[in-house]
Amino acid sequence: MRDVAFVGQGMSKFGDREDASGRELAFEAFEETMKDVDATRDDIDSMVTAFGVDETNHSAQPSSEVVTYLGLNPKADFRTEAACASGSAAVRSGYMTIASGLADVVLVMGVEKLNEFPTSHTTEVFGKAGDTIWEYPYGTTFPGYYAMMATAHMSKYGTTREQLSEVAVKNHKYATMNKYAHMQKEITLKDAVSANPVAHPLNLYDCSLITDGAASVLLASEEKAKEMTDTPVWITGLGGGTSSSTQFKRSDNTSIRGARVAAEKAYEMSSKSPEDIDVATVHDCFTIAEIIAYEDLGFCEKGKGGELVEEGETYADGKFPVNLDGGLKAKGHPIGATGVSMSVEIAKQLGGEAGDRQADGAEIGLTHNVGGNGQHVFVHIYERG
Amino acid sequence: MRDVAFVGQGMSKFGDREDASGRELAFEAFEETMKDVDATRDDIDSMVTAFGVDETNHSAQPSSEVVTYLGLNPKADFRTEAACASGSAAVRSGYMTIASGLADVVLVMGVEKLNEFPTSHTTEVFGKAGDTIWEYPYGTTFPGYYAMMATAHMSKYGTTREQLSEVAVKNHKYATMNKYAHMQKEITLKDAVSANPVAHPLNLYDCSLITDGAASVLLASEEKAKEMTDTPVWITGLGGGTSSSTQFKRSDNTSIRGARVAAEKAYEMSSKSPEDIDVATVHDCFTIAEIIAYEDLGFCEKGKGGELVEEGETYADGKFPVNLDGGLKAKGHPIGATGVSMSVEIAKQLGGEAGDRQADGAEIGLTHNVGGNGQHVFVHIYERG
Repeated sequence: MRDVAFVGQGMSKFGDREDASGRELAFEAFEETMKDVDATRDDIDSMVTAFGVDETNHSAQPSSEVVTYLGLNPKADFRTEAACASGSAAVRSGYMTIASGLADVVLVMGVEKLNEFPTSHTTEVFGKAGDTIWEYPYGTTFPGYYAMMATAHMSKYGTTREQLSEVAVKNHKYATMNKYAHMQKEITLKDAVSANPVAHPLNLYDCSLITDGAASVLLASEEKAKEMTDTPVWITGLGGGTSSSTQFKRSDNTSIRGARVAAEKAYEMSSKSPEDIDVATVHDCFTIAEIIAYEDLGFCEKGKGGELVEEGETYADGKFPVNLDGGLKAKGHPIGATGVSMSVEIAKQLGGEAGDRQADGAEIGLTHNVGGNGQHVFVHIYERG
Repeated sequence: MRDVAFVGQGMSKFGDREDASGRELAFEAFEETMKDVDATRDDIDSMVTAFGVDETNHSAQPSSEVVTYLGLNPKADFRTEAACASGSAAVRSGYMTIASGLADVVLVMGVEKLNEFPTSHTTEVFGKAGDTIWEYPYGTTFPGYYAMMATAHMSKYGTTREQLSEVAVKNHKYATMNKYAHMQKEITLKDAVSANPVAHPLNLYDCSLITDGAASVLLASEEKAKEMTDTPVWITGLGGGTSSSTQFKRSDNTSIRGARVAAEKAYEMSSKSPEDIDVATVHDCFTIAEIIAYEDLGFCEKGKGGELVEEGETYADGKFPVNLDGGLKAKGHPIGATGVSMSVEIAKQLGGEAGDRQADGAEIGLTHNVGGNGQHVFVHIYERG
């Protein structure tokens, strides 16, 4: 088992990118990724590409268009899909490609075009990531799933409307410090609390964005990493987990089982505990999801996630800085790109390259990426070289 | 890098399976896979699941429904997609999961429901696996892509109408010896030559089937494999390659570049050459594809693929037995399941369990799986333990 490092990372501008196709967004991310690395296309052995859904990309084999547009034929590639965790499945696959000895240098790319239809139709398409026999046909979509989780969490732990909104306020604030983020607008707690309802108790500012974008990382074996960069970031822990495809079968809607399992594995593999984490990007597709993530990752006791953000502990100067890139909430959530962009942010943070939103002295980082309403979850832990 | 073995394999009945959902087909394959293995669900650490297309499966996260239905939550899983090579991408990912040390025992599953629409619509959906900016919008679908390859091959090498049909005759014959195969009907050369046209020069019997099905293999590390079976089959070579997303950009339509690259890598990794291969399953989505596969794999000189089948060299008693399970042509081609079912056949052949269609004394096998019209290709080499 060989050590695997990030040697480069980059992303396209996230947003409503009607100016660019998926392959063009990928090219933007690729250029950013390669610009500070002592490597060229020729050094790349293999590729893994994440896309979330066929329909919004108008394609049944979207990754092949990216490989060709980047000029990487005939190198090996395949697509990973795990709904909203597709990007972290790609990072995991990139790690495995190198650690297994099949390649020395792997480009991991995540891409998604979403602003192709009215939001109502896109939400309908996403709904098919829920169980398509037992839930989707009855009208369930993701704002509804997470609204049920929010209701359960508020009922069981006393989580408040204001605590949900605190997540939005924090993530909008940090997005303004990230030039790649979709939203560039600070909001007040009053704005966030009083926004129009989407699925009670979630309102507009509780929901992440319909975003186009791409993000990529270049991974390398220990030997190659040392040739390519002076500032490698090592992947030291990987955990994966799954939850029931149906939400109705879950005994508890205040936590995601697959996330707890994935976190436990990642901590165990890297010999780390929650207290060791200096900076994290977590899956805030809805504000309640970030609060549940704090708890599933062990950043606080169960039920205390609302208080954690309210007390400022997940800001850059808090105990567990979370989503300093703006998160899915304000950076945006282009499905296939999301998990990869989480890794991009952690690599920047551990490299001390995060500018105004830098978590001081961050040496150990974590990404937490949830597919659907918990069907697939990946947690990765990274350490500065 | 740890050695990785097949310890179990199975498949559902392939066919027009309106009696079963995707998850139910997966369960059939899973039961077959586990029945001769000294292992239970508890021994499985992780899973990889191949599905080809969202639309025919009516889902945007189809693998999650399989994980849950098999009772494997909360074990890690993700989906691989590489169009028609999705299943081989899953086998490759299963290998990587174990060889990288992330798991000891991995279930690799491939599933596809296709008989959900009229064939014309399914063909349209598949067309989106071609380049969706530069070719698909102008009406290209897969019979057309492969018809162009057939025309080029006939023009350049003198490949005949009869030689194309010989592939169909062979594969239909062997499908009748495989109870899991979709087609159970021998055909004559006259039948095959005179069938109705689909895309000139390809006719009905040159085309593979619209099939529902699932196939799975259980992979294990060396240590675990020895506990679980007396007849492991080892994965000793893996190669991946890609070709341009557009066919018009390729300089030669008589060969698939990604396939040549994938084969070269697999032979190199396993220290084998074409002459060493005792039995193979290759990607005969259309009859011309099998002829091109012979050549890309080095089973004959370039341009001589038609003669190879005409001379009987790819029958069970020939020099290179190919597609003794009936191939995509007659066993059927449920996209996500196809590559996995190729591996299932090789495992059976190397285990001496292929009954009437057994290639005598087969010790070394190969699978060749093409996504789209060559965008993704995987070649794997297997050896009897």
